[in-house]
Amino acid sequence: MPDRLRATYHLRCSAASEAEALALAIAREQTIEVPPGVAGDDIEARLLGRVEELDPAFDGAFRAVLSYALDVTGTELLQVLNVVNGNVSLMNGVRLVGLDLPHAVVDALPGPRFGIPGLRHMVEAEGGRPLVSVAIKPVGRSPGELAALATSFVEAGVDVIKDDHGLVDQASAPFIPRVTAVAHAVEAASAKRERPCLYFPNVTGPVDTLDERLGVAAAAGCRGVMLCPSLMGLDVMRSVADGSRALALMAHPTHAQTAPGRHEGIAPEVLLGTLYRLAGADVVVYVNAGGRFAWPLETCRAINARAREPLGRHNAAMPAPAGGVDAAEAGSWFERYGPDTMLLIGGSLLTQTDLVGATRRVVEAAVAAAPHRSTSEDGLR
Amino acid sequence: MPDRLRATYHLRCSAASEAEALALAIAREQTIEVPPGVAGDDIEARLLGRVEELDPAFDGAFRAVLSYALDVTGTELLQVLNVVNGNVSLMNGVRLVGLDLPHAVVDALPGPRFGIPGLRHMVEAEGGRPLVSVAIKPVGRSPGELAALATSFVEAGVDVIKDDHGLVDQASAPFIPRVTAVAHAVEAASAKRERPCLYFPNVTGPVDTLDERLGVAAAAGCRGVMLCPSLMGLDVMRSVADGSRALALMAHPTHAQTAPGRHEGIAPEVLLGTLYRLAGADVVVYVNAGGRFAWPLETCRAINARAREPLGRHNAAMPAPAGGVDAAEAGSWFERYGPDTMLLIGGSLLTQTDLVGATRRVVEAAVAAAPHRSTSEDGLR
Repeated sequence: MPDRLRATYHLRCSAASEAEALALAIAREQTIEVPPGVAGDDIEARLLGRVEELDPAFDGAFRAVLSYALDVTGTELLQVLNVVNGNVSLMNGVRLVGLDLPHAVVDALPGPRFGIPGLRHMVEAEGGRPLVSVAIKPVGRSPGELAALATSFVEAGVDVIKDDHGLVDQASAPFIPRVTAVAHAVEAASAKRERPCLYFPNVTGPVDTLDERLGVAAAAGCRGVMLCPSLMGLDVMRSVADGSRALALMAHPTHAQTAPGRHEGIAPEVLLGTLYRLAGADVVVYVNAGGRFAWPLETCRAINARAREPLGRHNAAMPAPAGGVDAAEAGSWFERYGPDTMLLIGGSLLTQTDLVGATRRVVEAAVAAAPHRSTSEDGLR
Repeated sequence: MPDRLRATYHLRCSAASEAEALALAIAREQTIEVPPGVAGDDIEARLLGRVEELDPAFDGAFRAVLSYALDVTGTELLQVLNVVNGNVSLMNGVRLVGLDLPHAVVDALPGPRFGIPGLRHMVEAEGGRPLVSVAIKPVGRSPGELAALATSFVEAGVDVIKDDHGLVDQASAPFIPRVTAVAHAVEAASAKRERPCLYFPNVTGPVDTLDERLGVAAAAGCRGVMLCPSLMGLDVMRSVADGSRALALMAHPTHAQTAPGRHEGIAPEVLLGTLYRLAGADVVVYVNAGGRFAWPLETCRAINARAREPLGRHNAAMPAPAGGVDAAEAGSWFERYGPDTMLLIGGSLLTQTDLVGATRRVVEAAVAAAPHRSTSEDGLR
C-alpha cells in the first residue's frame, strides 16, 4: 500500500493541455484550496495534491492519478471522501474510478465485522456454497402478512430474509411491530429446519432513531440488519460497525448516485466494493446485470472483485447481486460469480404461484454450486 | 400544496413510448417495487406511484411528473429522499428536477431555525443589506495562524468567518485548539468594532463526534457552525436542526454529487435550495457563476429563488454564492442577486497584498447594496 492516498480520475477533456490544467486544479481544489502563492512554500510542498500520472484513457477522456498526503486526508472516512470526491463532485466531467488507500487509512476503518466467513458460519453454510437471500415486501402489507411471507421463505430454505428498503416505519407496518413479528416468525420456522435462517430488518430512518432501532432488532434476536449508507450517510454505517453491537450489516445502495457509464460521481465498484466494505458492510447489495436497470456484467464482476480482494486486515464482504434477478437463472449466476456470492431475489419469486417450490429450487441451485472440495467430499474443514 | 408528493423528472429517452414505460417503471420501483399482480388491487390503488404528466421537454428528454402517496413517503426526510431519488439514482438518464411537497412533509421538517431574518439580527445588519462571509484556510496553518487571519477579517468588517471545509481535525490545527483559538480571537476583535462578527467552525467529522464538536463550538461562544450535509448525511443536519442547540447552520455542498447539465442526480436548486433548507440550513453555500467551476447564472438564480421562496411555516435560507468569487466583483453580485445574499469569498482575498483593505471594500459594497428603504433613510424598522 502507498504512503500517500492515490485516487484515479477519468477527466472529460478535449485536449491533453486541458486535462493537465484540470488535474492540477483538482490537486489544489481538494487540498489547500487557495491560489498559488498564498499557502507558502512549506505547505505547498507538503500538502498540495500531486498529479502522479496523466494519460489519454479512451475517446474524449484522460486518466489522471492524483496523490494526497496523509496529513490532509487523515484516516477518518469522511475526510478521505471529502478529499477524493468533495468539491470535484460539483464539477462536470470528473469521475473517481480508482482508489488506493494508505495502510493507515485502511487499518483505521472498521471493515466487515463478519464478512463472508462470518456470514457462512451464522447460517451454517461453511462448506463454501453461495448464499440465498430474499426480500419481504411490498409496503402496505401488515406485520402479520410480512411475517407469513417470511415463514414461507424460511420453509423454502433461504439463508437470509431482508426487509425491502422501502419498508421503514409506515403506518401499515411500523418498525417495532414489523420487526418483532417477522423476527419471531423467522425464529419459529427456523427452529423446524436444520440450519438457521437470518432476518435483517431495515433500520434506515431518522439518524436519531438508529440506536433504538438497532436495539429493537437485537432484542428481537436478529443477527444483522439492513441499512442504506448513501441515504443515512456512509459514516453513519461506519459508526454502527465501530459500535458495540455485534450485528452483521447489509448495505443497500439506494440513493448512492452511481451507475456505470456516467462522466461524474464515483464508479460503482469503488463506492460499493471498496468504500461500503471499509465502512463496515458485511453484505454489499448491488444492481445485477440482466435485471431491471441493466448494469453491465463487467461492473458487477468489478464490484465482486473489490468486495472480495485482499484489503489489509479486513474480511471480504459478501457481494449480493439484486434488482430483478430471475429466480430461474440462479444457477447460472452462481456459476458466473462463484460461491462467494449471496444472490438476492425479490419480485421474481413473489410472482410465482408456488412460491415455496420456486424458492426451494434457488436454494438447491446454491447447494449445487458449492465448490467440489467441500466438507462432505474431502473430509476437510 | 398538494396532497401527494409530486416529483418532476427529466428522462433521457429516444421515443415517447420509451419515456412512458420508464415513467411507469419509476412509479413502481420507487413505491411497491413488486411486479404487477403481486401486491393486490388495494395496495396498487393506494400506494403505487402515479404518472401525472408526461411531455417532451427538450431534445432527447421528456418531462415526467410523478406523484407518490403520503402513506409511502411518510414525513421523514430520508424516506422522502428514498422515494424521490432512491433506486432511480442508480439508473442512467433519470434526473430529479422538481419537488412539490405535501404540507405534512414541509411542516414536519425543521427548516432554518434563524434563516435570513435571524442571521441579519445576529450580525446587527437589520437594515436589509447583504452579508459578507469569508473562509479561513488553508490546511497546514496552525490555530494561531488561522486566528490571526480571522482577526484581520474581523477588523475589515465581515459578518461571518467560516472554516474552510477542508479544515477538520488535522494535526496542524486539531478541532478543539483551532475552534477555541479562532473563536476567542474573533470575539476579542469583534468587541472593538460596532457590530458582532460570527465564527462558524466546520464541525464535519465522524458522526459520533458531532455532538461533542457542537458542544465545543457552543462553549467557545459560536452562534453557528458549518457542516457538510451531503458528506455527513442530510438527516444528520436535520437532527442537529431539530436538536436543542440554538446554532445557526451553514451547509457546505462538498460531495453533493450535483451540477447543472447532468442527466442524472438531483438538480442543484432542488437539492441545495429546497432539501438543504428544509433539513435546517440557515445558509446554503453553492458554486457561483464565474468562479472556479462555472455553474451557469440561471442555476445560481434558481438556487436563490428556492432558498428564499415562501415554503410553509419556514424561514428563508440565506443563499451564499462561493467558489472563487472575485472580491473586486462583489458589488455586481449584490446587484445581480439582491440584498438577501451572503457573499462568501475565500482565495480571492487571500491573494491580496492589502487583505484588510480589499476585504473592507467588499464590506462597503455590501453596505452600498442595502435597499433604499433602509432604517437610516425612512426611519422605519
